[in-house]
Amino acid sequence: MTVEIIAVGTEILLGNIVNTNAAYLAEKCAGLGLSCYHQDVVGDNEERLSETIKTALGRADILLLSGGLGPTQDDLTKEVAAKVMGKPLYLHEASRDVIKAFFEKRGLEITDNNWKQAMVPEGCIVVDNPNGTAPGIIMAENGKHVILMPGPPNELVPMFETSILPYLSKLQSCVIFSQTVKICGVGESKLETMIRDLIEKQTNPTIATYAKTGEVHLRVTARAEDEKEAKKLVKPMVKELKGRFGSSIYTTDDTVTLEKAVVDLLLANHLTICTVESCTGGLLAARLINVPGVSEVFKAGYITYSNKAKRRLLGVKKNLLLKHGAVSEQVAKEMARGAALASKADVTISVTGIAGPGGGTEEKPVGLVYMGCSVCGRITVKKCQFSGNRSKIRENTVSAALSLMRECILQYYSEVTFGGKEK
Amino acid sequence: MTVEIIAVGTEILLGNIVNTNAAYLAEKCAGLGLSCYHQDVVGDNEERLSETIKTALGRADILLLSGGLGPTQDDLTKEVAAKVMGKPLYLHEASRDVIKAFFEKRGLEITDNNWKQAMVPEGCIVVDNPNGTAPGIIMAENGKHVILMPGPPNELVPMFETSILPYLSKLQSCVIFSQTVKICGVGESKLETMIRDLIEKQTNPTIATYAKTGEVHLRVTARAEDEKEAKKLVKPMVKELKGRFGSSIYTTDDTVTLEKAVVDLLLANHLTICTVESCTGGLLAARLINVPGVSEVFKAGYITYSNKAKRRLLGVKKNLLLKHGAVSEQVAKEMARGAALASKADVTISVTGIAGPGGGTEEKPVGLVYMGCSVCGRITVKKCQFSGNRSKIRENTVSAALSLMRECILQYYSEVTFGGKEK
Repeated sequence: MTVEIIAVGTEILLGNIVNTNAAYLAEKCAGLGLSCYHQDVVGDNEERLSETIKTALGRADILLLSGGLGPTQDDLTKEVAAKVMGKPLYLHEASRDVIKAFFEKRGLEITDNNWKQAMVPEGCIVVDNPNGTAPGIIMAENGKHVILMPGPPNELVPMFETSILPYLSKLQSCVIFSQTVKICGVGESKLETMIRDLIEKQTNPTIATYAKTGEVHLRVTARAEDEKEAKKLVKPMVKELKGRFGSSIYTTDDTVTLEKAVVDLLLANHLTICTVESCTGGLLAARLINVPGVSEVFKAGYITYSNKAKRRLLGVKKNLLLKHGAVSEQVAKEMARGAALASKADVTISVTGIAGPGGGTEEKPVGLVYMGCSVCGRITVKKCQFSGNRSKIRENTVSAALSLMRECILQYYSEVTFGGKEK
Repeated sequence: MTVEIIAVGTEILLGNIVNTNAAYLAEKCAGLGLSCYHQDVVGDNEERLSETIKTALGRADILLLSGGLGPTQDDLTKEVAAKVMGKPLYLHEASRDVIKAFFEKRGLEITDNNWKQAMVPEGCIVVDNPNGTAPGIIMAENGKHVILMPGPPNELVPMFETSILPYLSKLQSCVIFSQTVKICGVGESKLETMIRDLIEKQTNPTIATYAKTGEVHLRVTARAEDEKEAKKLVKPMVKELKGRFGSSIYTTDDTVTLEKAVVDLLLANHLTICTVESCTGGLLAARLINVPGVSEVFKAGYITYSNKAKRRLLGVKKNLLLKHGAVSEQVAKEMARGAALASKADVTISVTGIAGPGGGTEEKPVGLVYMGCSVCGRITVKKCQFSGNRSKIRENTVSAALSLMRECILQYYSEVTFGGKEK
C-alpha cells in the first residue's frame, strides 16, 4: 500500500518551523512496509488544501495529514478533508466532555471556538489525544484512508504510537517485523563493504542502512503472514550481523541510544564516570546526562577550555602544554589522568581538539581531536580527524568519545576476566 | 511572485533525514517577499519527478529544487528538469575543470560517472559550488525560473546566500529590506500584547513574529523602489520597537545569537565567566563555547549533577542541601557563590532543576528550575517553571540562563555607572 504525508500549516511554508513530523511519519511508514512517494506541505487555505487532498487521494491509499485541527478560524483541515470525503460534521459528545475536562482541570475558561474541536465527520473513528484538545480522525472509504492528526509533535507522536500505528499495521495484508542493529566505531564505507553481499542478495528480510553521527543503524525487516513467521525470518539475519560486527554492535533494541548503552555498561560494572571537555565544551556530559538514571554513575564534569583550566583543575603540566600543545596525545592522556585523580571516578574521558573555524594549522588542522579514556587507571588515547563545520565536528567528537568509552570498558573487563589481569 | 520548494530524494521519503533545506529556503523566500504556497518532496524517480515539476510550474513562478545532482545513476533532477524545460544537456568545460581540480587536490581518482555533473542544460546559468562538485543551475524561460541546488545543506546554504539570493532579489520589481529585532526575557504572549496595535495597523513595513526557544525575533520588512527607500521605512519601526522593549532587545543584527551577545558583553566589560550546571549537564557551557572568541572569557565549567559534586567542587554545605533540597533558591545561590570562589571568574551562572521525566513532586514539579548569577560578588537568583519534555526543559533553561546573565551584567553596570556604586 502507498501512503502520502501532508503537513498543513502556514508556519511551515514561512520556514518558521522545520517539518519534523514528516520525517517521523515517513520513518514509521517505511518500518511498516508502506511505500511513500510524495510528501506535501500546504497552508491553511481551503482551495489549495482541498486540491492537495484530492491529488493525494488519486495516487495513494493512505493520507496522513498533520496540523490545522486547532480551535481558530484558520484551522481548516478537518472541515476540508470531510468535505472532500463527502462527510458532514456532527458534535461528538465524548470529545466535548474531554475538552471541558481539559479546561476545567487547568482552571481556564473555555472560549466558544474550542467546541469546534469536538465536531467530527460522520462515520469516522475518533482518536484520543491525551496531550491536547483536538482529537485525531480516521476516515475510511472505498479503500482510501484519510487520517488527521494534530500538528504539535508532542501530541502527534504519542497519538501515532498508540492509535494510528496499530490501525495501519492492520491494513497490511502481511505482518512486518523490524529489528534494528546499532553499530558504533565502524566507518560507514567499511561497514558497507562488510555487508555488500547481504545487501545484494537481500529479498526477505531486507536490510536498510541509516547513517547517524558516529554510528550506523541497520534495520532488518521481514514480511510474513504472521508475526511469529516474520520474527523467524529476521532472527538468522541479525545473528549473521552479530557474527560480522561483534562487539561493535552496542544494541539491538530500538529504544537504546549510544549514551544509554554506555551508562548501562557503567551501571552493570558499578563504575563511576567523570568527563573533561575542551572543544566539545559540555556536549559530551550533556548527552550522558540525558539518560535517566545517570545520577548513580556521573560523578562530575569539567569544562577546561583554556590551558589555565587544564592546569588548575586537572594538574596538566605547563611544560607539557608548551611542548606538545593543548591538542595532543600527551595532553589528552594527562587530562584523563588528572580527572581521575581529581574526581576519584573509575572511568574518565577527556576530549581536546580543534573545532574551528579558526585555530587550524598545517600540522594540526581543524577537525583534529584527541580523546583519552582512563578505566581504573589504564589510559587509552585515540586520535581522530573529522571534517565539516564547528558543530558537525563537535557532534562527531561526542559520538566518538562515547564509542571509545564503551570500547575501553569492554576491553578492560575482557582482559581482567580472560587474560588473568587483576583489577 | 510565487515560489515552490521541491526537495528530491528517497532518503527524505524514507524519513532518513529531516528536510531542513525546505525550512531554510522558505524563511529566505519569505524574507524576500516571495509567496510560498506549496512545498513538495519526491523521490529520485523520473516519472514522478517530472510530474511534480510540471504541476509546480503550473502554479508558481519560481521553482527551487534541491537534491539529485550527484554523480550516481539515481541522481536525475537535472536531467528531468532540463527535459521538462525542453533543454538538451551539453558538457560545460569550466565545470569539468572544477571537478577535475576538486579530485586532484584530494588525491582521489575520478571515476567516469563524475563527468555527469559537468553536463548542463542549454542556455542555463551555471552556479558555482565552492563546497562540492555539482554546480547549481538556473533555467529561465517565459517568466518561469527553475533553480537546481545540491542537497547537502553545507553546499546548498552557501550557494543560496552567494548566488541564488541575489538572483531572486533582482526578479522582484521592488526591493525588500528586512531587519530582525531579537528579544529575550519577555514572554511570547506579553510580547504579543505589547505590539498588537502595530501588527493590526501594519502595511509597509510589516512585522513577522518568530518564536524561538526562550526568545522572540521580530522581523520588520519593507518593500520600496530602491534599498535606500526600504531602509527608510524600516528605521522608524525598529526605533519604535526599541522604545517599547528597551534592553530586552539583545541585538538587531541577524547574525548575532543570544550566546554571542552574552560573550560580546563579557568581552566588552573584560569579564570572565564560569558555568555550574546540574540539570542542563553541560548544555549551557556548550552553547557559550560555540561562540568563536569565547576562550578569552571562559575560565571553566563545572557539571555538578550529584549532591556530592556540588559539595566537593563548589563547597555547598551538606546541611543546606538537606534542608532545602538541591533544587532550591538557596542551593542555586551557593552554587554561584562557590563557583566564583573556586574559579575566580567575575561572572558565574548556576543552574539546578528538575528536567524530568522522573523526580518531580507536588511541591517541586518537573520543569522547576533555579538559576543563580553572580556578577562581581552580587548574586541574583531566578525561579522558572518550564513545561515540555526533558530536552525542551533543558533547552529553555539554557536560554533563560543566558538571558539572566545578560540582565545581571547590564543591571550591575547601570548601577555602578548611574547609581554611584563602586565595583
